[in-house]
Amino acid sequence: MTDFAATKALFHLPEGMIYLDGNSLGPLPIAATDRMNEVMRGQWGEMLITGWNKAGWMAQPTHLGDRIGRLIGAEPGHVVVGDTLSIKVYQALAAALELTPDRRVVLSDTGNFPTDLYMAKGLLDTLDKGHELRLVAPEQIDSALSEEVAVLMLTEVDFCTGRRHDMQALTAKAHELGIVTIWDLAHTAGADAVDVTRVGADFAVGCTYKYLNAGPGAPAFIYVAPRHAHNALPALSGWLGHEAPFAFDLDYRAGPGIERMRVGTPPVLQMAALDAALDIWDRVDLADVRARSVELSERFIAKVEAHCPDLQLASPRDPDLRGSQVSFRFAEGYAVVQALIARGVIGDFREPDIMRFGIAPLFLDENDIDGAVAILSEIMREALWDRDDYKVRKRVT
Amino acid sequence: MTDFAATKALFHLPEGMIYLDGNSLGPLPIAATDRMNEVMRGQWGEMLITGWNKAGWMAQPTHLGDRIGRLIGAEPGHVVVGDTLSIKVYQALAAALELTPDRRVVLSDTGNFPTDLYMAKGLLDTLDKGHELRLVAPEQIDSALSEEVAVLMLTEVDFCTGRRHDMQALTAKAHELGIVTIWDLAHTAGADAVDVTRVGADFAVGCTYKYLNAGPGAPAFIYVAPRHAHNALPALSGWLGHEAPFAFDLDYRAGPGIERMRVGTPPVLQMAALDAALDIWDRVDLADVRARSVELSERFIAKVEAHCPDLQLASPRDPDLRGSQVSFRFAEGYAVVQALIARGVIGDFREPDIMRFGIAPLFLDENDIDGAVAILSEIMREALWDRDDYKVRKRVT
Repeated sequence: MTDFAATKALFHLPEGMIYLDGNSLGPLPIAATDRMNEVMRGQWGEMLITGWNKAGWMAQPTHLGDRIGRLIGAEPGHVVVGDTLSIKVYQALAAALELTPDRRVVLSDTGNFPTDLYMAKGLLDTLDKGHELRLVAPEQIDSALSEEVAVLMLTEVDFCTGRRHDMQALTAKAHELGIVTIWDLAHTAGADAVDVTRVGADFAVGCTYKYLNAGPGAPAFIYVAPRHAHNALPALSGWLGHEAPFAFDLDYRAGPGIERMRVGTPPVLQMAALDAALDIWDRVDLADVRARSVELSERFIAKVEAHCPDLQLASPRDPDLRGSQVSFRFAEGYAVVQALIARGVIGDFREPDIMRFGIAPLFLDENDIDGAVAILSEIMREALWDRDDYKVRKRVT
Repeated sequence: MTDFAATKALFHLPEGMIYLDGNSLGPLPIAATDRMNEVMRGQWGEMLITGWNKAGWMAQPTHLGDRIGRLIGAEPGHVVVGDTLSIKVYQALAAALELTPDRRVVLSDTGNFPTDLYMAKGLLDTLDKGHELRLVAPEQIDSALSEEVAVLMLTEVDFCTGRRHDMQALTAKAHELGIVTIWDLAHTAGADAVDVTRVGADFAVGCTYKYLNAGPGAPAFIYVAPRHAHNALPALSGWLGHEAPFAFDLDYRAGPGIERMRVGTPPVLQMAALDAALDIWDRVDLADVRARSVELSERFIAKVEAHCPDLQLASPRDPDLRGSQVSFRFAEGYAVVQALIARGVIGDFREPDIMRFGIAPLFLDENDIDGAVAILSEIMREALWDRDDYKVRKRVT
């Protein structure tokens, strides 16, 4: 059984702040600063160039990949860390399209995170082979699957509403139709016990600065299913994905398996923070995290609905259809979120009217949930008393 | 006049080490650890998600870009930091090919750093429009320029030999022929007073972990000439290059000017180290750096040739044709470099027989040069005494 009081003590949380934005940027693991110091002084400072081998920097992207792999159900050797999520989406989609040369539709939904769509657009424009990026509403994905579709590219949990796709069912149906799948796990990794192997996902990508708490600008990860690992080609064929990077050959030869998804020099300092952040996950059972997330989310929803009747739940009410965040709609949501932040409750706002609250059990407990709702309901009461004045006042401060 | 004794004092250099590998990974600026600590504890730890605005993380890529721009002769607003050099090469080449739609040859040389060639290959394969990546010997570049060539893509200073291209002359000739130029300044930025504006370079890219000393995995940079800034399209069209990233539009609209070359979330921790490393450059005149580099390099060459007659200079003898490194050829170069490293003189080896020594004036002086040559000549004498035995002994240890 995961000891969440113990995990909470491993984070630095500012005095007087209730942090409901771990779905956007996780808090600082206390051990990360010492780890960084050790990597900077003890490794970069003392070993300099020899750190690439002596300190294991060169092997870190696959080593950290395996540590993340354990959290998403990947077998060792099939996840690598590096770059940003946008770059990894590009690589996954380029490789997936190579595997489906006779089809011309990339299917996604309007709830996907925009950069996934932008990167896809950039790739399809570069390819210039008449591919279509077809966007449908999230609930229409199932019926939009057809033999015309080359690649199904989805983010499991919607960044706005927390709505969750049925990864297992959609992947199974996609495979029946010969469609290759790419799952963006940005809002899943560290929030739920996803299992890419059991689901049969072809590609998965994600970031490490949200629920995994690896810090601002932390690197992304990519998973390639073992059955594709040796024939998926990255369009971004950098030297560290080469079969023999230090042979300095003029010709590119893709490295073995997941190694080919590496591109350039890995971000050693960001990886130090990620490594420290992942230590916490060694003490955690993801099934416990998920159960605790549901428990805290249900508590949050019940209390908000009881005390703030003007807020309308934007997330699915059924926890099975929801990731680890709760969103509410409110016309003056922007002002309310600003007022919350001013009082130390950190959530965020997404146009046009979505107030988002991340529920990250590693560092949140009932007191945080109750405290946040108390402040939120105060603000809402205030706003109801004199709404027009409230709007003006909040917008100018 | 730059005070190089003062700059040397700003770096952590391990006791007893002579570091001639700043062309591969620069040493730790002493101030970087405190800066990192401040960014981790004071910004990530205390501000969390609000750090993107409050601590200026979101603006750092262009802010740091401007600081680097000053070192390469770019006007403010035309350089941005992020990703890796491989990724920036891909973006530059994709944009350059968009500007030259009627031509099909990308010209480079066999002395280019392999990842530039690999990324080009990956892009051309993805484009699949019959482009040719034409490689000639470095000295044949001038005569290989023709109206068939779309893009001339070169690294100014050869990573192996330190040979330098005539950036001004080649760019001028390229432009006469309607060719777009991409200059990789990996071994130039921080080593020489290059001026991309005066030269008229169309695109320039570089890394910050070599002469700029920003640490292992430090981000890359890209420069786009003002005349192209608003029509060059990055193939890697990520959300932070969008006109309005936080509008979360479904459609991509390229941001203004250099902003569009941003891709995903910037590496805030790596940028902290870069920012600290760049502070040192505020005290430095690049013309002094270049003059000092030539002075130290000439001293190194003269002494090595006097004391180690078996080593053959692999770099151009004329300093005007050479970057800030000196390379020697020797059949047993690998063993010699290993022996040097064992005695605290850090250079590196590149197949088949190149021993590389970076001459970085910010932290090297005459004592370092003389000390390195003394140890090198000892090793060479040892090796000459009993060459076969030496080889075996060094290879097994």
